[in-house]
Amino acid sequence: MEETFVPFRGIRNDLDARRLCYKQDWTSGFRAGLRILAPTTFIFFASAIPVISFGEQLERNTDGSITAVQTLASTSLCGIIHSIIGGQPLLILGVAEPTVLMYTFMYDFAKDRKDLGHQRFLAWTAWVCVWTAALLFLLAILGACSIINRFTRVAGELFGLLIAMLFMQQAIKGVVEEFRIPKREDPNQIAFIPSWRFGNGMFALVLSFGLLLTALRSRKARSWRYGTGWLRGFIADYGVPLMVLVWTAVSYIPVNDVPKGIPRRLFSPNPWSKGAYSNWTVIKEMLNVPLLYIIGAFIPATMIAVLYYFDHSVASQLAQQKEFNLKKPPSFHYDLLLLGFLTILCGLIGIPPSNGVIPQSPMHTKSLATLKHQLLRDKLVSTARRSIRQNSSLGQLYGNMKEAYNQVQTPLVYQTPPGLGLKELKDSTVRLASSSGNIDAPVDESVFDVEKDVDDLLPVEVKEQRLSNLLQATMVGGCVAAMPLLKKIPTSVLWGYFAFMAIESLPGNQFWERILLLFTAPSRRYKVLEKCHATFIEAVPFKTIAVFTLFQTVYLLLCFGITWIPIAGVLFPLLIMLLVPVRQYLLPKFFKGVHLQELDAAEYEEYPATFPLDDQGQSRMESEEILDEIITRSRGEIRRTYSPKVTSSSPGSQDDIMKPAYSPRATQSPYSPRTAKLRAEHSPHNGKQP
Amino acid sequence: MEETFVPFRGIRNDLDARRLCYKQDWTSGFRAGLRILAPTTFIFFASAIPVISFGEQLERNTDGSITAVQTLASTSLCGIIHSIIGGQPLLILGVAEPTVLMYTFMYDFAKDRKDLGHQRFLAWTAWVCVWTAALLFLLAILGACSIINRFTRVAGELFGLLIAMLFMQQAIKGVVEEFRIPKREDPNQIAFIPSWRFGNGMFALVLSFGLLLTALRSRKARSWRYGTGWLRGFIADYGVPLMVLVWTAVSYIPVNDVPKGIPRRLFSPNPWSKGAYSNWTVIKEMLNVPLLYIIGAFIPATMIAVLYYFDHSVASQLAQQKEFNLKKPPSFHYDLLLLGFLTILCGLIGIPPSNGVIPQSPMHTKSLATLKHQLLRDKLVSTARRSIRQNSSLGQLYGNMKEAYNQVQTPLVYQTPPGLGLKELKDSTVRLASSSGNIDAPVDESVFDVEKDVDDLLPVEVKEQRLSNLLQATMVGGCVAAMPLLKKIPTSVLWGYFAFMAIESLPGNQFWERILLLFTAPSRRYKVLEKCHATFIEAVPFKTIAVFTLFQTVYLLLCFGITWIPIAGVLFPLLIMLLVPVRQYLLPKFFKGVHLQELDAAEYEEYPATFPLDDQGQSRMESEEILDEIITRSRGEIRRTYSPKVTSSSPGSQDDIMKPAYSPRATQSPYSPRTAKLRAEHSPHNGKQP
Repeated sequence: MEETFVPFRGIRNDLDARRLCYKQDWTSGFRAGLRILAPTTFIFFASAIPVISFGEQLERNTDGSITAVQTLASTSLCGIIHSIIGGQPLLILGVAEPTVLMYTFMYDFAKDRKDLGHQRFLAWTAWVCVWTAALLFLLAILGACSIINRFTRVAGELFGLLIAMLFMQQAIKGVVEEFRIPKREDPNQIAFIPSWRFGNGMFALVLSFGLLLTALRSRKARSWRYGTGWLRGFIADYGVPLMVLVWTAVSYIPVNDVPKGIPRRLFSPNPWSKGAYSNWTVIKEMLNVPLLYIIGAFIPATMIAVLYYFDHSVASQLAQQKEFNLKKPPSFHYDLLLLGFLTILCGLIGIPPSNGVIPQSPMHTKSLATLKHQLLRDKLVSTARRSIRQNSSLGQLYGNMKEAYNQVQTPLVYQTPPGLGLKELKDSTVRLASSSGNIDAPVDESVFDVEKDVDDLLPVEVKEQRLSNLLQATMVGGCVAAMPLLKKIPTSVLWGYFAFMAIESLPGNQFWERILLLFTAPSRRYKVLEKCHATFIEAVPFKTIAVFTLFQTVYLLLCFGITWIPIAGVLFPLLIMLLVPVRQYLLPKFFKGVHLQELDAAEYEEYPATFPLDDQGQSRMESEEILDEIITRSRGEIRRTYSPKVTSSSPGSQDDIMKPAYSPRATQSPYSPRTAKLRAEHSPHNGKQP
Repeated sequence: MEETFVPFRGIRNDLDARRLCYKQDWTSGFRAGLRILAPTTFIFFASAIPVISFGEQLERNTDGSITAVQTLASTSLCGIIHSIIGGQPLLILGVAEPTVLMYTFMYDFAKDRKDLGHQRFLAWTAWVCVWTAALLFLLAILGACSIINRFTRVAGELFGLLIAMLFMQQAIKGVVEEFRIPKREDPNQIAFIPSWRFGNGMFALVLSFGLLLTALRSRKARSWRYGTGWLRGFIADYGVPLMVLVWTAVSYIPVNDVPKGIPRRLFSPNPWSKGAYSNWTVIKEMLNVPLLYIIGAFIPATMIAVLYYFDHSVASQLAQQKEFNLKKPPSFHYDLLLLGFLTILCGLIGIPPSNGVIPQSPMHTKSLATLKHQLLRDKLVSTARRSIRQNSSLGQLYGNMKEAYNQVQTPLVYQTPPGLGLKELKDSTVRLASSSGNIDAPVDESVFDVEKDVDDLLPVEVKEQRLSNLLQATMVGGCVAAMPLLKKIPTSVLWGYFAFMAIESLPGNQFWERILLLFTAPSRRYKVLEKCHATFIEAVPFKTIAVFTLFQTVYLLLCFGITWIPIAGVLFPLLIMLLVPVRQYLLPKFFKGVHLQELDAAEYEEYPATFPLDDQGQSRMESEEILDEIITRSRGEIRRTYSPKVTSSSPGSQDDIMKPAYSPRATQSPYSPRTAKLRAEHSPHNGKQP
């Protein structure tokens, strides 16, 4: 995206680009059929559950002027609008932790002002929203988003980790709270006598850890060894929601003489209970806010604007990372503009505004990548099978597959030659054919192992459409009605879920992986290379990595620490924005440019050095496990794929692979790719058989 | 061992054989130095903890006439004696679950008899022990153990799994009990009001699962990625005891207004508290037992004799499995004779007798295999390093290593040419030399990668000595004195430990692995081959495996079920003994001989078919992980090792490995070794890089 600050140009570009694929956004969504429900439910839970408990937090912090009903309403409303008229439909909107912090800060300020106080708080926030919106418009129009490329990994990943920390903090706080008497309840209930509190706390530990551990496992179901493929797939797709249900059910097991209120469950007024609507009419109040405060509202507004500008853009950016090979264009400016409108809307009906959320947005894209992979796979496998049955030659086989691929792959007008993956498909298949030397002979399963080879041929692609986003937002809205059901979920399950989301967001965060690297035994560092294609380990001296990581960690802790400071906390968005100039002007003074490139570059693809390593790393992985990898990895390391046959059958690569076996000299450095090959080579003859 | 029923011959053979290595049993033990403490403590905990809670069970079931003090005393006493004058020092003695069952059955019978009752119960059991001993003598003298070879895998593994089930049952029962009011306590304590009971139960869940999960993880520490090698090794060796300490510490965290008695802790009288010794003088009582009962004691005696005969022999057998390459002879008859004496001894001082225990005994051998491996490794590595520094040729290098190996490997007079491992060492090294074509050129790390190659050269061997057994038995004795400390362990931690032992005993149990196989998705069965070298999967049709496994499972459940029947329960040893004839005469009618051989043969070694598979399976494994494998695998699949160089550099094997890559036809069956090779071959070029 070129950096242009000509007013409106950014927005126009976005609209022009997205308009072209708008129709396809819907058609392809519907063509996915029922399968669309897998990513939908996954994201629905990922955005509903935190929003609900943020609502609970806000209710506590704002003496009930904002409840889960409002947060859900906001998330749903904004989500629906964005999914329909928004630019980038992969972006998930929701009331986020930072918003909660901001509203808490604002309430603490407002409640003691006599001519503002509790009853005019929402009216005042309405003004804040107005100002915020104004600023967002300005930013959007002036093309502020075109500097998005300067938000490098360092900034994005640091923010991602900060969010993860906030989630984890919430989880821990929550569980600890389970042992205490909650503020707003009256302490004389039987459930709050020490003995029951102890029991409740312990039960909370069981439930939260139960959910956390089982949820984490269920995500890996595709690589399980037991159960049918269908079951494994189902668990991997719906395991997390399933676990929430399971552990909620478990929470009902203890019945005999356990008083109600143990375990504690979600608390929220039903939307139809009186007073729940008092705040929808906040707009009437707005003019009763003293002018001074109307103007003063500008100060928090700037903070929120900065926050949303960054949060929204980074969330969108993370949802459109390189390795996903998205085919459709981004839309940063237009989305920011829209966010402005949404903010006003929310402000005027007295609900906290939503913005693009992390980690849900990248999670969304990942789950859609999985979906797309499965769809493509089924299609191609069946095609291949058919043409093999009609014992057609490899040429024909390829032809049919190409056709099938195209059917799934509606080419996009504005796009570079449709379907990169397709080209590969062609090349590889052809080479495959020539290599096995019988281009015209009828193929059979042995020449072309359908199940396996199709997987190897498939590129990473994402089912880019608006349906899943629309559906999940609608379901979130449904929660408002389903409140009585939601109230059955124990809070401790929520805390477990918070921990789960925090952990889910870590893998693939290079910053996180570097932190782990610091604790990795030198002899095992090569394993990091195998697991995540972290080329920097080879290219950058360990000491540099360590220093860089430490700097980042300190900065992270700084950001985390500032959120604890009562009012000054509102400044934490600034600290993150500050990273952009720091990265651009300060870091280069301390680190070699080439090293920075390695540690903080978006351009990661096709780095030859790591090749054999990945191969080795992924060796013997089944498609499902690879898939598993794709969806558990979230940053710039996913690559387009290569046919195994191509490499494995071209003699060149062959003895290239073999050589090291004869020149064991390569054994010395554990990092050189040669070692890796050597490892790869030795292993099959590695005598050690315990 | 030839089947001889000539009186005393079996015993004489055992004594003749063991006498020759008696001295060496001690010397080699002491030469191991402090390292001997790793297996010692591991086994100490594994035998002490269950014995303590068996003591608690007995106390409850026998109204306190037998307590943990007695069970500990018995275990320690018998252990010390056996470790000094016993035949096979790898065998661990202890009061076992079956003994507890038997004593419970006997007490239930005795307590209601007016002229026997509580006060003469122990005197009566003394008589039972006398009879039992008599029968054991008979069995030993008549060489009953020479039919030990007829106790095939089927019987041994079934018994192993039965024990595991009993342990797991105890664990579950125990945790459930934590929610209830314990029988012998007075129900009016504050700790037993519903609310605290609930809390206690939940806390128990946390503690027991905490221990279970962390203990299981700590055993795998060697293959962790984080922390220094030393730390990882330490955790792997001492992790389990460590975790018992950690979780005991955790159990002390909740202090404020939590009443004492929560969580519940081990209960046992201190040995010095009055009355604890009442039963040591049981011998005086013996003559007051009515003649009728003295004779009647013969009936339970037979059962116990059968039980001990089987349990003792199988435990010993499992501790001396093929794959451990033990160098020293077994001693079944003599050990059974000794067991007779121990039984009398225990009977006369009124403590329950001990016998060879599962899973502790095989656990013992495994941990000693680990020890030996580490010792050999250190020695050879340092030697190799030295000779490389003196840049000696491969020939010399080999010479030095041979020397070093011999030093560690005190040759045993009666043995086949000392140290098989040595021969391999020679051959491989020489071939290695010739292959790299420079037998006289000075070696360097590149030709001979010390760390790695030494590992590949090392055979699986066991540090066979008496010290670890003696020490652990003494430490168990120490527990009697340390009772006040032991009482700090929460019972819930015990339950977790029971579950841990049950699970620890599963891997490598082919029966168990076959049960899992039934639930494995067909597409993933090959993984079973990779993990455990289960050749039967290739050699036996799946249907046969399934039927065989089902039969075994039904039989297992039968044995398990019978232990639940009040008095008839004493018969369960018979049911297991029955398996021997069943296997010998019944099964052959239903299964092909060759299949039975596969599923139930001890001779598993050098099965070419699985070769590439294991290779692939173990590929990229570090020595430590392999070690990890050794100690987590417990049945006939561990093989002597081969130098990687030998295979990887002889061109023959080379293109043998390569071929499949060019003839993908082999892909069809997922089971053929070729597929495996193919897999092995494809993988490094497997394009799928998520």
